[in-house]
Amino acid sequence: MTGRVPSPPSSDRVRPDVAVVGAGPIGLAIAWRCAGRGLRVEVHDPAPGSGASAVAAGMLSPVAEAYFGERQLTELLLASAARWPAFAAELTETTGAEIGYRGEGTLMVGLTGDDLAEARRLWAYQQGLGLPVTPLRPSELRDREPALAPRVRGGALATTDHQVDPRLLVPALRTAAQRAGAVLVPQPVRHLSEVDARVTVVAAGCGAAALTGLPVRPVKGQILRLRAPDGVAPGFRHVIRGYADGESVYLVPRADGEVVLGATVEERSDTTVTAGAVQRLLRAGIDLLPELAEYDLVEAVAGLRPGTPDNAPILGPLPGRPDVLAATGHHRHGIVLTPITADLITDLVLGGLPDPLLTPFRADRFGAAAVAALGGPEPTMEGDRWS
Amino acid sequence: MTGRVPSPPSSDRVRPDVAVVGAGPIGLAIAWRCAGRGLRVEVHDPAPGSGASAVAAGMLSPVAEAYFGERQLTELLLASAARWPAFAAELTETTGAEIGYRGEGTLMVGLTGDDLAEARRLWAYQQGLGLPVTPLRPSELRDREPALAPRVRGGALATTDHQVDPRLLVPALRTAAQRAGAVLVPQPVRHLSEVDARVTVVAAGCGAAALTGLPVRPVKGQILRLRAPDGVAPGFRHVIRGYADGESVYLVPRADGEVVLGATVEERSDTTVTAGAVQRLLRAGIDLLPELAEYDLVEAVAGLRPGTPDNAPILGPLPGRPDVLAATGHHRHGIVLTPITADLITDLVLGGLPDPLLTPFRADRFGAAAVAALGGPEPTMEGDRWS
Repeated sequence: MTGRVPSPPSSDRVRPDVAVVGAGPIGLAIAWRCAGRGLRVEVHDPAPGSGASAVAAGMLSPVAEAYFGERQLTELLLASAARWPAFAAELTETTGAEIGYRGEGTLMVGLTGDDLAEARRLWAYQQGLGLPVTPLRPSELRDREPALAPRVRGGALATTDHQVDPRLLVPALRTAAQRAGAVLVPQPVRHLSEVDARVTVVAAGCGAAALTGLPVRPVKGQILRLRAPDGVAPGFRHVIRGYADGESVYLVPRADGEVVLGATVEERSDTTVTAGAVQRLLRAGIDLLPELAEYDLVEAVAGLRPGTPDNAPILGPLPGRPDVLAATGHHRHGIVLTPITADLITDLVLGGLPDPLLTPFRADRFGAAAVAALGGPEPTMEGDRWS
Repeated sequence: MTGRVPSPPSSDRVRPDVAVVGAGPIGLAIAWRCAGRGLRVEVHDPAPGSGASAVAAGMLSPVAEAYFGERQLTELLLASAARWPAFAAELTETTGAEIGYRGEGTLMVGLTGDDLAEARRLWAYQQGLGLPVTPLRPSELRDREPALAPRVRGGALATTDHQVDPRLLVPALRTAAQRAGAVLVPQPVRHLSEVDARVTVVAAGCGAAALTGLPVRPVKGQILRLRAPDGVAPGFRHVIRGYADGESVYLVPRADGEVVLGATVEERSDTTVTAGAVQRLLRAGIDLLPELAEYDLVEAVAGLRPGTPDNAPILGPLPGRPDVLAATGHHRHGIVLTPITADLITDLVLGGLPDPLLTPFRADRFGAAAVAALGGPEPTMEGDRWS
């Protein structure tokens, strides 16, 4: 426990040590960790797990997702991915829930010569960072995944890039948090003054903008769920990160026959599924893995990722508000960053010194003006809720 | 009324003159017409309108659908389409229901030179039959539909090919039939011995096979429903029948913003929506009308058309069973053939001589063996129900 003294109980309820706003994977994992450290925790969300995580594919791919100019983010992704095996094991041990953690690795492939040339530039960058990227000849590629289209020109393997199923993860985290003593408050929070706790953690995804004034914006992603016919497992085992005629897609096979095929990245805040996006995703997916043409198309859906100006999360106290911690802006990386976000934010709640890993992700890096809304009037941006 | 005398009432109910099995558009229109002629009518269906009509686009296209080797079918399609304007007006007048009847005509287009060459062969055949097909230069085509892709190579207009909305048609027909006195019996019929009427009409779509032994087989069709953004009408007015890189598709615009994009023709009896079919339909649709890429994809669904060995409907008494009339096997043409099927079957129910138009569509044209199941044991083919 921290040296701070929890507030005395009020007339009708005990004031919690921590109020977490948002019961997605980030908020629930923080609640689990905090409750596990003996803190009184409330989690506010009218619809747990209904945000970006309900749509997410669940790739744990710090290597395949290591992009030019995002070195500090890559370090955080790697550190969090390294915590995933123990995190998954502890969660399953605690709850008995299977969360679909799989470690077959990720195959990165290029369909055409142009796709492969572009992919190789990225692989060279990733190798330059010392990341475990192993180029494969076409024959080696097909030995590993015979279902790949014969015309796939080449690929590389990232054995350390794994996957989990977000739709299993969220209920498991909810169970774990509640068993540890966290209390779920199924109501929306429209202003931070509505919650009363020693420390408030804003893990509200896109909704963090209206609550804190932080520059978090929705980034639309459209994603498809396919299913192998006849209830069998998909005909491939690795996560496939593919480049196909200039389209970048991923394919995540699940043991139950599901294949997640995603995703668009669009600077839009609607959640409509558009004909063009579905066509491009399907075309790229089928070009890479022809057997997908015979798969059932069972879901087409769009979600909103919480994006930030530098594509990196916002982790830590708001400027001038040490009692309010942001844990948002995870953009495309919310699932992989769940363990480390939970651990490091819990350390902050407990009054510890910030882990140096957090330095690049401080809330004040966008300037104080970015959080000017704090303490101001009720947010008025229509439709911008945190759940 | 016919010269036949209706049976006397039984203890608990009046024996109907006509039992119609199947409350799709065909069955309901027959029930409406028969009830309108003073007959006591029962219509048996646990789920009216849940068969092929729930999926159908509603093109009334005897010209665009006039194919090589189907001359007699084309004559029936033309005769029925000619009855549609009066049929639609009467139905709307009777019920007050709008059924989406539109007469802007159908534009037939070819995307590539190869597509256009193939389409022109068909248009020449159609013109040879004396059908009103008017070739258009690309500039004329774009004057009529500026939304067509610039690379569409050419087209032709069939002004007499119209459309209706099957999802509005079925409830309107149900209302009309019930107001005329027909009674809906919301129960399945698994054997013809379960219905008791002077005349039984089997309008059970694919389910007719198990009930009658007729060679009616399911022909799967996958179809998409898109919607123009922002609630506006689609950016095109004609039904588009297009050939796009070898794919044959149609696009039906509705006043409320819906666009129906169909359809596959597959010799399969499942109703799963497959990734490959959706991709091909979307690709062809977007190639022909690029604005569709920004449309919402609101529905992807598959239905089963009642196909026959010669692709033509089966209309008239079963061999050896003058009291059982088939009105099934309409395959891709159930909506356009609804008025004439209702009129001619009603004439048969009333004991009139068969219209010469019916001759090619007699139930005995496939031989008596085809109806061997009649009077036999309960059908056992799993999943082969008539609704």
